[in-house]
Amino acid sequence: MLEILFLGTGASIPSRDRAMPCIAIRQTTDIILFDCGEGSQRQLMISPFSFMKIAGIFITHMHGDHFLGLPGLLQTMGASGRKDPLIVCGPQGIKEGVETVLSVCPGDINYHIDIKELKDRDAVKFNGFEVSAFQNEHNLPSLGYVLKEDDIPGKFDKKKATELGIKVGPDFSRIQNGECVRGITPEMVMGSSRHGCSVVYSGDTIPCERLTEAAKGADVLIHESTFSEVHEKLAKEHWHSTSTQAASTAKECGCRALMLVHISNRYEDLDMIKDETVEIFENVFIPEDLEMFRITADNIRSI
Amino acid sequence: MLEILFLGTGASIPSRDRAMPCIAIRQTTDIILFDCGEGSQRQLMISPFSFMKIAGIFITHMHGDHFLGLPGLLQTMGASGRKDPLIVCGPQGIKEGVETVLSVCPGDINYHIDIKELKDRDAVKFNGFEVSAFQNEHNLPSLGYVLKEDDIPGKFDKKKATELGIKVGPDFSRIQNGECVRGITPEMVMGSSRHGCSVVYSGDTIPCERLTEAAKGADVLIHESTFSEVHEKLAKEHWHSTSTQAASTAKECGCRALMLVHISNRYEDLDMIKDETVEIFENVFIPEDLEMFRITADNIRSI
Repeated sequence: MLEILFLGTGASIPSRDRAMPCIAIRQTTDIILFDCGEGSQRQLMISPFSFMKIAGIFITHMHGDHFLGLPGLLQTMGASGRKDPLIVCGPQGIKEGVETVLSVCPGDINYHIDIKELKDRDAVKFNGFEVSAFQNEHNLPSLGYVLKEDDIPGKFDKKKATELGIKVGPDFSRIQNGECVRGITPEMVMGSSRHGCSVVYSGDTIPCERLTEAAKGADVLIHESTFSEVHEKLAKEHWHSTSTQAASTAKECGCRALMLVHISNRYEDLDMIKDETVEIFENVFIPEDLEMFRITADNIRSI
Repeated sequence: MLEILFLGTGASIPSRDRAMPCIAIRQTTDIILFDCGEGSQRQLMISPFSFMKIAGIFITHMHGDHFLGLPGLLQTMGASGRKDPLIVCGPQGIKEGVETVLSVCPGDINYHIDIKELKDRDAVKFNGFEVSAFQNEHNLPSLGYVLKEDDIPGKFDKKKATELGIKVGPDFSRIQNGECVRGITPEMVMGSSRHGCSVVYSGDTIPCERLTEAAKGADVLIHESTFSEVHEKLAKEHWHSTSTQAASTAKECGCRALMLVHISNRYEDLDMIKDETVEIFENVFIPEDLEMFRITADNIRSI
């Protein structure tokens, strides 16, 4: 099960209702962030998630609205006594960027920050899930991300194993670890494995092949939708997507749900954005700040 | 008349209720900011003040909680089409700091930012008021600020001037500009000038002589109060002040009101902080985020 918490759903400039881009995903206890715009640490204070449980932060690109909350959050973790190491990932330039801003604003950070510059298809493993990067197409080095929960192996059926003559002891372990024991195969005593869920985050991008490839079969596609379809030309000029382009990608990729973020402040009527999207892909959400979704193999719902 | 809008009253780490340090002061139409912690631009969006009317931003020191909202605000002004030049002031290091962070996060800024590194007693003139710096004592280069409204000259009494034989025309201008006209002195036809109000902001500091000197006779002293008097030793170790030290300065300086900010999150009971302060200086406020005060020669009140 994954929980997606939208900490900031705005675009470029914050508004009364929407903070700068930041999406938290929790799997069991570990939390990762996709982007960390200015004010994300305060949104975390207001939210039910603990900023001390963040294991990794994935920045899509170095525009201020996606990055400028990171230095403050790193310092707040330090001031709050964090000792656990933290993984910070981003495109080319993230390492120098983080180190430069932290050198401008001195603060006590007494934990290790492992800053990784990721390239297309690089992956980072966490306990229970993996995050991989794909190169998208924006007007500076920029990534999107895929979070894929580990598949959960099927449950061992002790009763059935005993009936088939497997003895309690080392043979139980062998068959659970995939070995064949006296003609009994693991498939005969293990339930079917459970589908791990996946969430794809487009980052800021025009529609592109690598995004489509990454989103194939994803449970949830979180896609930027800076513009409405009526401003498709403007979207292209600014290296952004429209709501209907996002919908087309979700449809083509067979995603279960599409969540639109990064909608320009120029659109006051979000029903209009939703309506044009639904015509192409039905299961669309436009999350509000601090809205949370629970994603299981059976269900995707706002909680 | 001055209006003080507390955009962020927190200390070091934001909380559910308090954003990072940022205080806006408006005189007629021009607005200046004292400090610009992370999230200040969003607080401005929520407030009644327009971020496009900001004429100057005065950073006290380069700790992240006082500075990290500045780059994003500068970029938001740019993205919103600002053309008017902006003055940004701070201690030694502010120029390199701002330029460095803006180079890390590219953005369109098509207006002139005049970045001034101020020293003790340096002053910057605005239309209707002046802001001067004083060096305070913190654990890095650090300033406090004094905003002094221009005195408003007394009103010209046309009727009285005519009765005393001054003729409508050039003589009217001459006497209003301070000249003596045919034995009639300006004092005889001008009302008394109105006291311009002053606000002093301590910045982060231990009690120090230059602060006391700057705050002499100020209408309002906005003073950091990171600690309660019960933690005076801790305050000194961290180069901060206690509430009662702030009260003693306000009393010694004959201020009309003391406003406490930057109170550590460790204190849940602010009544306790207020009670210990009031014992030394009576007219104490502990402003909330987005609380606004109107300051005139006759009155200081929350509106």
